Amino acid sequence: MFKAIVSASTLRDALDSVSVLVDECKVRLNEDGLSIRAVDPANVGMVDLSLDSAAFESYEADGGVIGVNLARLEDIAGMGNAGDLVHLELDEETRKLHIRIDGLSYTLALIDPDSIRQEPDIPDLDLPARIVVEGNQLDRGITAADMVSDHINLRVDEDAETFHIEAEGDTDDVDFEMGPDDLIDLEAGPADSLFSLDYLKDMNKAIPGDAEVTIELGEEFPVKLHYEFAEGLGNVTFMLAPRIQSD
Amino acid sequence: MFKAIVSASTLRDALDSVSVLVDECKVRLNEDGLSIRAVDPANVGMVDLSLDSAAFESYEADGGVIGVNLARLEDIAGMGNAGDLVHLELDEETRKLHIRIDGLSYTLALIDPDSIRQEPDIPDLDLPARIVVEGNQLDRGITAADMVSDHINLRVDEDAETFHIEAEGDTDDVDFEMGPDDLIDLEAGPADSLFSLDYLKDMNKAIPGDAEVTIELGEEFPVKLHYEFAEGLGNVTFMLAPRIQSD
Amino acid sequence: MFKAIVSASTLRDALDSVSVLVDECKVRLNEDGLSIRAVDPANVGMVDLSLDSAAFESYEADGGVIGVNLARLEDIAGMGNAGDLVHLELDEETRKLHIRIDGLSYTLALIDPDSIRQEPDIPDLDLPARIVVEGNQLDRGITAADMVSDHINLRVDEDAETFHIEAEGDTDDVDFEMGPDDLIDLEAGPADSLFSLDYLKDMNKAIPGDAEVTIELGEEFPVKLHYEFAEGLGNVTFMLAPRIQSD
Repeated sequence: MFKAIVSASTLRDALDSVSVLVDECKVRLNEDGLSIRAVDPANVGMVDLSLDSAAFESYEADGGVIGVNLARLEDIAGMGNAGDLVHLELDEETRKLHIRIDGLSYTLALIDPDSIRQEPDIPDLDLPARIVVEGNQLDRGITAADMVSDHINLRVDEDAETFHIEAEGDTDDVDFEMGPDDLIDLEAGPADSLFSLDYLKDMNKAIPGDAEVTIELGEEFPVKLHYEFAEGLGNVTFMLAPRIQSD
Repeated sequence: MFKAIVSASTLRDALDSVSVLVDECKVRLNEDGLSIRAVDPANVGMVDLSLDSAAFESYEADGGVIGVNLARLEDIAGMGNAGDLVHLELDEETRKLHIRIDGLSYTLALIDPDSIRQEPDIPDLDLPARIVVEGNQLDRGITAADMVSDHINLRVDEDAETFHIEAEGDTDDVDFEMGPDDLIDLEAGPADSLFSLDYLKDMNKAIPGDAEVTIELGEEFPVKLHYEFAEGLGNVTFMLAPRIQSD
Repeated sequence: MFKAIVSASTLRDALDSVSVLVDECKVRLNEDGLSIRAVDPANVGMVDLSLDSAAFESYEADGGVIGVNLARLEDIAGMGNAGDLVHLELDEETRKLHIRIDGLSYTLALIDPDSIRQEPDIPDLDLPARIVVEGNQLDRGITAADMVSDHINLRVDEDAETFHIEAEGDTDDVDFEMGPDDLIDLEAGPADSLFSLDYLKDMNKAIPGDAEVTIELGEEFPVKLHYEFAEGLGNVTFMLAPRIQSD
């Protein structure tokens, strides 16, 4: 059983964070809210999303799991203005999701959850550095790195207390340095890892410009990017595996 | 003889309604205004346009017929801002149309009207249902239908006094229901017909979002869409043949 | 030695005027400012740019020459907002240009100036007509000409004291006439020349809409287009060779 009402913008923010990595996903309809975990086909990027029942206008669920085509559901959520309410109701028998927005009824065929790639276990890493930065700043660094390379290096300078987004191209280099004035917070620690830029660009697409992004970083370790949406009732954690640096 | 002055926006609105169906058309230069009738090459969609001489700043004509390339004429009208005046003058001898907008003179070669597809007779159907709806609402229904199918069903529910824009896809369905609060007017009657979505999308492109669109509908009959522009001095009627429903 | 600080918008305006003609260019780092001269590979269009040292926040140079990839440098300048300051510093040893904008450091590999096409000598022509027109008007004429032809004719009517942008297509013609009310200034003289529209379209892309463009024109002679940017401290002259008119 699942029946819920949520604003179109909250639904879109939730779906965007997952659709940058996968086309289909399992959605867990827990009693206290929705949750989604997914990993891209190459096992490089993961997402862990939760949306608290309090983010909904109304919410009733009893722990089922549904499989959804994300692009399709995003298109439907896109039919509403930001504040429009989206009514969702699961028909257990036909395995269809009934969606209503302001006079528009959409019947979405669900996907058999067993046919969807298994949900990843997102490891509980204890990473030595923690950087908090505005989404806009992260975007700026990623855009600059993209001018010269397919890879991006994230690094903390413990002495200078600065965070660096770096890229080395065949001829040109980029170094975007953020100091105490640019960062919202920094817990310095040994942190220097290289990543595929394509993945970080995709994740970045989902991160709102005004979001506070918490970056957890180590040395040749995965990076975790965490941000909130829906006034703190929605939580997204991305995890991205490192590329091994060849010297 | 033909000599007229009209605002760029009125000229564009008139041309748009025809160019969504055909590339070339005959324009009748009647004493009391312009008129155009055209049918697409597949004989599925028709348009009947009239623009009263009172919609012009000045207008003189004596009943001739010219053949025009619509894209070309739209490009020229697009060189002016909405309020700019477009001066049109026919040179009978050279069969060219002289067009002037704010210092810019354009000499448009006309097409031999005899080489253009014959103008259709638009049948005078007595359709049982009449729905009046805002252009924006129609657009919303068409956009939703387009998510799931190439066909679109228009239907009146006589008991509920509602108008439905529906589409059935391979897996998903859409039903956009408009009740008394959403409709400007409704004369209910037996009405349920299926249409090609591509044609309706093209016609919809020409309909201003704030226009009142009068839809005349029957059971497996053509639909007529009527709207006005140029403060009621311009009139457009689209007619679209139905697809036969296979059950 | 070269070290300078300049606003991102001034740098972009300078680069745009050259990049419409060539991909790479030599930049002369004179004591009193930058200068660039370049000609397109077909020897049809030339540009002569100078940017006075007073247009910079700070400027130090001693007469060197560097070779730059324009698209790359434009991308970097595009990372700043209009008012952001761009710091430029040449590393003579590594032949790299260090660029900083608001926390972002970019190391740009320079191109060997000897590998870049030789700078043209821009002839000092004494052309009989001089037309001063707003960039927007020139843009309007070029857009209109582009509807009918690949060539564009620029002409002064000495008797009527008007300037004409004309194009003759296979079937249609365009004549954009500017009289004393439309022109900022006109020194009439025998002037009537045909040009490749593609080149003029490219040059036009770099000309700001509100710039005063001085056009020097003759009979089957090259045209010169001159405009200023950076509050008069930047100067651009384009020169375009004529097409020979076949009658």
